[in-house]
Amino acid sequence: MNIAIIIYFLGWILNVEAVLMLLPCITALIYQESSGFYFLITLVICGALGAAITFRKPKNTVFYAKEGFVCVALSWIVLSIFGALPFYLSREIPVFEDALFEVISGFTTTGSSILTDVEALSRCMLLWRSFTHWVGGMGVIVFMLAVLPLAGGGYNMHIMKAESPGPSVGKLVPKVRQTAKILYLLYFGITVTQITLLLLSGMPLFDTICLSFGTAGTGGFGILNDSIASYTYLQQSIITLFMILFGINFNVYYLFLIRKPKDALCCEEARVYIGIIAVSTLIIGFNIRSMYPNLITAFHHAAFQVGTIITTTGFATADFDLWPELSKTILVLLMFCGACAGSTGGGMKVSRILIAVKQVKKELGSLVHPQSVKILRLEGKKLEHNVIRSANGYFLAYALIFAGSVLLISIDQFDFTTNVTAVAATFNNIGPGLAKVGPTCNWSGFSPFSKYIFMFDMLAGRLEIFPMLLLFAPGTWKKGF
Amino acid sequence: MNIAIIIYFLGWILNVEAVLMLLPCITALIYQESSGFYFLITLVICGALGAAITFRKPKNTVFYAKEGFVCVALSWIVLSIFGALPFYLSREIPVFEDALFEVISGFTTTGSSILTDVEALSRCMLLWRSFTHWVGGMGVIVFMLAVLPLAGGGYNMHIMKAESPGPSVGKLVPKVRQTAKILYLLYFGITVTQITLLLLSGMPLFDTICLSFGTAGTGGFGILNDSIASYTYLQQSIITLFMILFGINFNVYYLFLIRKPKDALCCEEARVYIGIIAVSTLIIGFNIRSMYPNLITAFHHAAFQVGTIITTTGFATADFDLWPELSKTILVLLMFCGACAGSTGGGMKVSRILIAVKQVKKELGSLVHPQSVKILRLEGKKLEHNVIRSANGYFLAYALIFAGSVLLISIDQFDFTTNVTAVAATFNNIGPGLAKVGPTCNWSGFSPFSKYIFMFDMLAGRLEIFPMLLLFAPGTWKKGF
Repeated sequence: MNIAIIIYFLGWILNVEAVLMLLPCITALIYQESSGFYFLITLVICGALGAAITFRKPKNTVFYAKEGFVCVALSWIVLSIFGALPFYLSREIPVFEDALFEVISGFTTTGSSILTDVEALSRCMLLWRSFTHWVGGMGVIVFMLAVLPLAGGGYNMHIMKAESPGPSVGKLVPKVRQTAKILYLLYFGITVTQITLLLLSGMPLFDTICLSFGTAGTGGFGILNDSIASYTYLQQSIITLFMILFGINFNVYYLFLIRKPKDALCCEEARVYIGIIAVSTLIIGFNIRSMYPNLITAFHHAAFQVGTIITTTGFATADFDLWPELSKTILVLLMFCGACAGSTGGGMKVSRILIAVKQVKKELGSLVHPQSVKILRLEGKKLEHNVIRSANGYFLAYALIFAGSVLLISIDQFDFTTNVTAVAATFNNIGPGLAKVGPTCNWSGFSPFSKYIFMFDMLAGRLEIFPMLLLFAPGTWKKGF
Repeated sequence: MNIAIIIYFLGWILNVEAVLMLLPCITALIYQESSGFYFLITLVICGALGAAITFRKPKNTVFYAKEGFVCVALSWIVLSIFGALPFYLSREIPVFEDALFEVISGFTTTGSSILTDVEALSRCMLLWRSFTHWVGGMGVIVFMLAVLPLAGGGYNMHIMKAESPGPSVGKLVPKVRQTAKILYLLYFGITVTQITLLLLSGMPLFDTICLSFGTAGTGGFGILNDSIASYTYLQQSIITLFMILFGINFNVYYLFLIRKPKDALCCEEARVYIGIIAVSTLIIGFNIRSMYPNLITAFHHAAFQVGTIITTTGFATADFDLWPELSKTILVLLMFCGACAGSTGGGMKVSRILIAVKQVKKELGSLVHPQSVKILRLEGKKLEHNVIRSANGYFLAYALIFAGSVLLISIDQFDFTTNVTAVAATFNNIGPGLAKVGPTCNWSGFSPFSKYIFMFDMLAGRLEIFPMLLLFAPGTWKKGF
């Protein structure tokens, strides 16, 4: 393990975080909020520490996959600890573990909150909260790769691999740095489009920026206590559309960009994803029909809620905990499904579900025709053995961590539904669950111990488990290779 | 698909079922119950149909794995349909789907009941109910293989493979028929031991037989409305011990029998299984301490409940739905874990959980040391690629069927806890769940549609999914090979 290079890397993370702090600082200036001072302090701390660490590059630049995974996991932890400082120092969130929970929930684009009154926060704090979603959605390290002249080749690839969601890394172009740039440009472009559309619909600028950050990262922090419920149906519909768009593999947009619309429309994962959304909305729409004045309103809420859950955003327009059991169960299943790989959404990812279904089909086929050798394909390409193996490793680790988390938080004496959906909501980076963690509730009632479990789950969910697990593996910290 | 040989095989199943009906007939004679008449009718129907079908063996005796799986799945369905007749004809369970549910719950050793008043049943019906557990525990087809002169070799192996629980078939001796005989002798021997011990403890003979059948098959049907709660602590402890014993891989007993106690004690799966029971009992014992007059009583109930759930038996001495959330969560997790492969217990099996944990460890190890090739071992032997593949196929199919079942039964408007634990209780062949399907409740409240879903789940759980799925695969029913 090359610890020197990891520390050097973390130094750059602090530098980047210092730059990120500029946005809430500016917001505080505009709204003349004194709490902006705490962002300035954090900016200075991050900048000074970062500059001191990155002053000299270590001689030993050996950087393998192991270093990549550890770097990514530690980066997110460092990013969160320093990101929580403004909340804590300003006493707007007076308990440190709560501030940390809130920021991890932000960066991992979960959107679960420990705040009982969101509207009590100052504007710069609200913006920072939503901005963490935007940064975490595409990934801070992908951002670093795009803009910083770090060492090239394997170095970048190992990091990209560890931070990117989905069963395999989809490089758009041969160069990692170029891929990262294209991803961020697309991300920026679609976000600006959403801000513009929301502005045209009559929403105030501050709200459009915060909500678009939340949508783009599929995060889910709102700036009002009732989340999105008090905006107009048009505004809610714009958000529905963009949530679904941000849940699609960014490869699709890239294919449109380079004028290959036919290839873009053929994307198997995106088609299944849209199919699931359509079918779920239909069933839920009819299921909740009697609760709303007309069918259109019912479908409006159904589509919004399906979009917000499958993309793991977590905004709310209605308290779906009051919906019939069938609708609730569909939403809980969508929590696990998640959005497309290579999007900003969380969950298991549609492509992994596809790989699972295909494996079961193959297993059945091999019972009927034991001699035939069947090849698994996704997006028309053969699935390599190591992709299947790592998808299965992911599923198993997922199930084990899920079970362990439910067990550990059950000490808090909440009911079974709350415990299961709370872990589902954090591990899949969604936000709301059912019962005590339903859309109208918050996470302040849990013990500090449970909160740390949820923080681990959020980070493990966002980084797809293995980087976080690796931190605890005994072999990781041994000297040498 | 060789349909002729499958029908011929089902004919033999009917013959065997006719013989099985003798036991309740004799019981009815002893207790002079008129409802015994319905067993006689069923006996005649099964015998006549069976004799007509098995009168001539088909010329085409081609029998591949596919035929094996389909045979096993259909055997269990045929066995259940005819097994339900006495309940239905006698009007002791007046609705056919309820009678079918009860018998499938019996044969699959689930132990979930639709009866609100068990004690209202006649003695011959109670005995038949418990006897289905005993037959289903080791498997009716294993029994057939042991006693009937069916065709040899591949034929037997394919069937044994499809009915035996666990990730790989553990043949004790090279010949399948011999293995089946040894298994049934061990099974019979341990059951008789339990009956004897319970008799010595002062329990009436009828009760000892029924409860020992239920324990041996890890079934869980009781003959009293309060399950096992009104028996003495000594009797409950005997049952606890034998439940745990029947959850151990029968290989272990065979190794003792052939005087290889050292090998028997080395069984990795059995040691982990005992370890899980010990740790769970300890935690639950202390967790429920305040609810019982002293620590010994608390541990008595904890051990009984852990034993009954991990072995998927489902007897109850206490309403664990009233226990603290931590204890309930441990029990729910044990539901999924299940007992050892090659035992009469259900669930995923400890060995599969071991394979899962080892795969995750290997995946982590390969991130730390990408070049090293690590071999997975279970019981000291290398795990072949196809065993791992089929274990993963099982996990994925398990998750998909589980999710689908929860979704379909949610139409009934029961709460989330009920739905999840109801599917867990049937799919893992346990019996009781939490909330509306807790230890003091029954399954009569579900709609007929949900009951059929549960029946499928019970059969799929007992036969480890693929035989049941194969019935619905389009390739299965095609002509030719």
